[in-house]
Amino acid sequence: MQKIEEFVQVYHREKEVLEMVLSRLEHMTICMPLWLSLDSGTRFGKIAAKDSAKDVWQAMAYQGKIHQLTGVANSIVWGSMPKNDVSRIQEETARNGLRVDTVHAYFAGEAASYGSIANVKKEQRDLALGQIQECIQIMRATGAKNLSLWFKDGTNYPGQADFTARYQRMLGVLKEAYSMLDADMTMLVEYKLFEPAMYHTDLADWGTAVAICQELGSQAKVIVDLGHHAQGTNIPATLASVYRSGKMGAIHFNDSKYGDDDLIVGALDPFRLFLIFHEMLTQERLYGNSMEDISLVIDQSLVVEEKLPGMLYTIENMQIAFAKALLVDVHELEARQNANDVIGAARVLREAYECDVRPLLRLEREKNGLPADPFAALKEEMTC
Amino acid sequence: MQKIEEFVQVYHREKEVLEMVLSRLEHMTICMPLWLSLDSGTRFGKIAAKDSAKDVWQAMAYQGKIHQLTGVANSIVWGSMPKNDVSRIQEETARNGLRVDTVHAYFAGEAASYGSIANVKKEQRDLALGQIQECIQIMRATGAKNLSLWFKDGTNYPGQADFTARYQRMLGVLKEAYSMLDADMTMLVEYKLFEPAMYHTDLADWGTAVAICQELGSQAKVIVDLGHHAQGTNIPATLASVYRSGKMGAIHFNDSKYGDDDLIVGALDPFRLFLIFHEMLTQERLYGNSMEDISLVIDQSLVVEEKLPGMLYTIENMQIAFAKALLVDVHELEARQNANDVIGAARVLREAYECDVRPLLRLEREKNGLPADPFAALKEEMTC
Amino acid sequence: MQKIEEFVQVYHREKEVLEMVLSRLEHMTICMPLWLSLDSGTRFGKIAAKDSAKDVWQAMAYQGKIHQLTGVANSIVWGSMPKNDVSRIQEETARNGLRVDTVHAYFAGEAASYGSIANVKKEQRDLALGQIQECIQIMRATGAKNLSLWFKDGTNYPGQADFTARYQRMLGVLKEAYSMLDADMTMLVEYKLFEPAMYHTDLADWGTAVAICQELGSQAKVIVDLGHHAQGTNIPATLASVYRSGKMGAIHFNDSKYGDDDLIVGALDPFRLFLIFHEMLTQERLYGNSMEDISLVIDQSLVVEEKLPGMLYTIENMQIAFAKALLVDVHELEARQNANDVIGAARVLREAYECDVRPLLRLEREKNGLPADPFAALKEEMTC
Amino acid sequence: MQKIEEFVQVYHREKEVLEMVLSRLEHMTICMPLWLSLDSGTRFGKIAAKDSAKDVWQAMAYQGKIHQLTGVANSIVWGSMPKNDVSRIQEETARNGLRVDTVHAYFAGEAASYGSIANVKKEQRDLALGQIQECIQIMRATGAKNLSLWFKDGTNYPGQADFTARYQRMLGVLKEAYSMLDADMTMLVEYKLFEPAMYHTDLADWGTAVAICQELGSQAKVIVDLGHHAQGTNIPATLASVYRSGKMGAIHFNDSKYGDDDLIVGALDPFRLFLIFHEMLTQERLYGNSMEDISLVIDQSLVVEEKLPGMLYTIENMQIAFAKALLVDVHELEARQNANDVIGAARVLREAYECDVRPLLRLEREKNGLPADPFAALKEEMTC
Repeated sequence: MQKIEEFVQVYHREKEVLEMVLSRLEHMTICMPLWLSLDSGTRFGKIAAKDSAKDVWQAMAYQGKIHQLTGVANSIVWGSMPKNDVSRIQEETARNGLRVDTVHAYFAGEAASYGSIANVKKEQRDLALGQIQECIQIMRATGAKNLSLWFKDGTNYPGQADFTARYQRMLGVLKEAYSMLDADMTMLVEYKLFEPAMYHTDLADWGTAVAICQELGSQAKVIVDLGHHAQGTNIPATLASVYRSGKMGAIHFNDSKYGDDDLIVGALDPFRLFLIFHEMLTQERLYGNSMEDISLVIDQSLVVEEKLPGMLYTIENMQIAFAKALLVDVHELEARQNANDVIGAARVLREAYECDVRPLLRLEREKNGLPADPFAALKEEMTC
Repeated sequence: MQKIEEFVQVYHREKEVLEMVLSRLEHMTICMPLWLSLDSGTRFGKIAAKDSAKDVWQAMAYQGKIHQLTGVANSIVWGSMPKNDVSRIQEETARNGLRVDTVHAYFAGEAASYGSIANVKKEQRDLALGQIQECIQIMRATGAKNLSLWFKDGTNYPGQADFTARYQRMLGVLKEAYSMLDADMTMLVEYKLFEPAMYHTDLADWGTAVAICQELGSQAKVIVDLGHHAQGTNIPATLASVYRSGKMGAIHFNDSKYGDDDLIVGALDPFRLFLIFHEMLTQERLYGNSMEDISLVIDQSLVVEEKLPGMLYTIENMQIAFAKALLVDVHELEARQNANDVIGAARVLREAYECDVRPLLRLEREKNGLPADPFAALKEEMTC
Repeated sequence: MQKIEEFVQVYHREKEVLEMVLSRLEHMTICMPLWLSLDSGTRFGKIAAKDSAKDVWQAMAYQGKIHQLTGVANSIVWGSMPKNDVSRIQEETARNGLRVDTVHAYFAGEAASYGSIANVKKEQRDLALGQIQECIQIMRATGAKNLSLWFKDGTNYPGQADFTARYQRMLGVLKEAYSMLDADMTMLVEYKLFEPAMYHTDLADWGTAVAICQELGSQAKVIVDLGHHAQGTNIPATLASVYRSGKMGAIHFNDSKYGDDDLIVGALDPFRLFLIFHEMLTQERLYGNSMEDISLVIDQSLVVEEKLPGMLYTIENMQIAFAKALLVDVHELEARQNANDVIGAARVLREAYECDVRPLLRLEREKNGLPADPFAALKEEMTC
Repeated sequence: MQKIEEFVQVYHREKEVLEMVLSRLEHMTICMPLWLSLDSGTRFGKIAAKDSAKDVWQAMAYQGKIHQLTGVANSIVWGSMPKNDVSRIQEETARNGLRVDTVHAYFAGEAASYGSIANVKKEQRDLALGQIQECIQIMRATGAKNLSLWFKDGTNYPGQADFTARYQRMLGVLKEAYSMLDADMTMLVEYKLFEPAMYHTDLADWGTAVAICQELGSQAKVIVDLGHHAQGTNIPATLASVYRSGKMGAIHFNDSKYGDDDLIVGALDPFRLFLIFHEMLTQERLYGNSMEDISLVIDQSLVVEEKLPGMLYTIENMQIAFAKALLVDVHELEARQNANDVIGAARVLREAYECDVRPLLRLEREKNGLPADPFAALKEEMTC
């Protein structure tokens, strides 16, 4: 095991800073949904993967394995699949050393065609409300504190519906759902520019999501999914906007080139991932928005990737980006910003980003009794 | 001159509907900025056009000519160019049969590099505030009621500035500016996703613009410029979002394929222009948001187009789209929407859109003593 | 029935022009794939529609009905589903008054994960070649002359594969497939920017498709699918590029806002559809590229739309756009273009586009013994 | 000075590999245009920067300074500004230790409005041809071997011109220009999706550029500018396509979020820059396309950035990305690719990318007598 003192000259940061980095890495918690290890696919069909979990219980066991190897993934997202067996959920989460952080609602009925909570038909909206209520019951049984709501609602054609009428119906159902929450529960509302609806989405952007949460009350917060924006959208700046509204609740991490591609976070644009952590740390340092209050959720769709290595790669990318963001010399950064020194300020971030933090991650793992190379450890187990 | 009765069987709409359409067309008012007839260009240089106005006074004469030919363009946007000669503005607007609807602020100093109202340097922010104050004085002298604010503020690189600090400075200056307004003045705040700043813009989206206007008060409203969004953004749905916030103030019309291309409105996507008018009429009919309260401003940059024909083409496109939107059978539309009849509802809009409304426009012009073909009338005058 | 003379003053075009338009409309042929009336969906699941066909045979009956109502949809695309029953295909196409224009290959095996003809594993490439061979056999049995090839091949991550190695494997398989073609068969090769692969697609753009077809020989042609491009791509100009290469083979029609949304063609941007027909007619008139040599294929995915009305709406949009493009005054257009008269030239197109061609379409239908309003005729039949 | 042996355990690469990396870095040549240190701007106006060069001669002196500090930037792009003083060019390039690598043509006349070589007017095309001829004369005088051609040609509106007629005129002029080249000269043809033309560009994509170069002959090659594509385009895959055609001539480096933003390369997406170098090295290693045959040109527009630090940052980003790409374990990469091991292959690239190569760059600089920290050296000189 290397000593932390050795890193001082590598990273040009004081020992205290490096100890802070190690401590933050140690306490990092990443929330992973069970669908990560289940079969997934594209609109051209589901792909039966060799290494996918057979059902949610095996998915939970996989999740336990990932947590055992990395120490950061003990919280899970539970989707409200039909026939939820609450006592088994409790039993299996305990056995796998996990806890249910969030319950995520799936909507049936006409949700995928004419919408759930914005549907013009009252019986469809009632159906959706019932499904949310079911999620709240699972939350009570499992101790989950976050209700995660994403809606497929939208339209495919101009004229198909009136935007405002749909919004009002949507708000009406959400107000009823909000009134069902316990005092310590948070309703997380997700927005998305498009897909599956291809002309307009009822909850399309952060502005709409914040407006809705303001109507609902203090227990309603916004989910920012990194892949739910138009190409060209500045994600760190969007985070800052949601933070300013006081409604930041969760970030759904993934990477993408075109739309909601749901690829492994940091695999296409690792610098953007670093900038996202830098923004979160800036909000914490300067504006009192603690990272502890924000759920870090992995929202990917592992279609062609091997499931367990894919999850390890995800976590590695998150840890690398977070560690680098923690190394930023914020005092130097502010000095350069205050002088309108464009190149100077940009390079302060790059100085941290160019560091190789993998030795630091290994040190942190060894300190916490985790395998220094989780990929190698997984491979070894698999071949046993 | 055709009789309105003849149109009943052409458009399949009652005589009363057609009379309403004619009346709405007659009262349509379009606000045009003087820069439309001045030399314009791209970042590769300004282009000296053969038919551009030599200065703002000639631009105003051109504007008067367009109004004379079309009857809809009597209101203008005045930009706060240096050394504004107020008495001459009054004199020339009267002579040309125009009125100043809006004063648009230009920002000097470091506005184009490190920003105006979000600049970290107080002297730059004070400079910007002074420029806004100057605009308000021109408003008082000309009777303009709208102050139009667009800022080049933003950054080109990650780390160049802290988003939130810039926002707070921006809000601080705007609060001071807001306090200078007379009671019957409206401050119109424009957002834009990018350009000239190429990493982030301080006022990038409708959510930010609405949030700022809510901080300022009831006299602050949002400008939606059709070209200031990411590709793929649904503009009619975005209008509905701004309407819902109660902050819709003005629409800047233009057309584009890539970014803020500032091409002639309706020239690339005439159906979208029709849908925008349909949304405005829907807001008026169902949600009490009168079109009279919203300024329709042409914000184009005529670079390679002949200036005066370009302005006539702009107005023609606006009138065609508005007339078609007025012809929509809204009762049939709602019936189809309420039945989740996707194709049926979409086709109700198309039934109106496919009408040839040019004979109706000619009738309206003849009724109001305007040339039936403004292009021909302009050509005739030009060759005299 | 109206007389064609009545239209001369409506459209300001000579009787001979209008007769030409009617004749072209009468001979228009649109090729529709059977999947249009089968259940479809998104990556979030297939949607069981009330009015979808239960199997390919019922889909063929639906197609026959659409042809009966419109007279333009007698050619179909047959997908190489497993266990193709050739004699039944022959029987049912004849019974429904249809003919198989094109056989479209589906690829099984690892096609959706690591690729078909670009897969690094030879057995997967051989599997794909076998599937193409099976398609050619169906072509022989049905008299279809077009083999339509689209591949899901691509990668999700940087480094996952070497682009050039994949290209070479792809070209190798296609050369083998090409050698299997009969002399009167055409191999149509489709490109697509992304989806299902989310980092790179092996056949991503028209340049690659043309290069491959040039390697293969004169029987290989390119399919341009309107939805397979990056946002902002100019489709009419892209058509001109493919035409110039001599490799234009087919156009797959649909509409979209974001990616390959597969919405009803002309439903979001009817002006673009008009411009596409204008480009095809320009190629025919000036450069000897007859429209008869290009297959017009509908490639949509009707998910939330009613299937049969959706198909009628599709055909109506195609006919309206084609009729308007036929009305363009090409001599006036060229005069304006040759004078660098930007507004003038643009308005020549708009003069044709603004015409209401629905009365002309009704006349053409009545002349050919078709229902004047196919939607009403369908509704009547449905309620019988 | 560190010893190369020390790096073996840091980078987990053999000493021979590291020596190869050092050698490649030492021989890296970057071509920088003189406009980098001249005043630049946006379409809202040129910005007079404090530290910009007053004229091309001072720009050349700045360029000499950058070369002195970095050792990699000795070749320049000379733009054909009016009244080129050839003997002074020769004198000043020699004095500053530079050489003219490329002459870049600017087009006057109607180039920015109706086009240069695609203009319908013959006198405008002749004017453009004359300007190209002038460039070739400067090439002879300076010894430059590359003629760099970018055209503003395109249209703003549907119907404004016929795409094919413009293409044919363009090709006609280029054939004449090509015939004027000396046997050792290369004509580099640049494509661009949009801007300044906002509807279509005559030379819009790599497919068109390659087709033109194939028509011209073996001395015609393609320039790929990283910012000249639609959002979402996969640049490394596009490079592979151009390489396959045998027409790769030069890469214009910059970074962007929206369009041709011309920001400092690698400043927004450093991983993409790494992938670009990886693709170039792959082409060299596997397909015989030597990097020596490809010009690496910086094509940025430093508007708000300090000019000289901006150029140093550019070079640093290029060197970092190149060094990391050189460290990729290509044998391991191929093994993972051949096994369809998606995560494994992706991680081989990341293993190289996550290395901190700055110590290696410092070693290379010290070995070559260059300042270890060029930014500090520049600052020191500036304050003297």
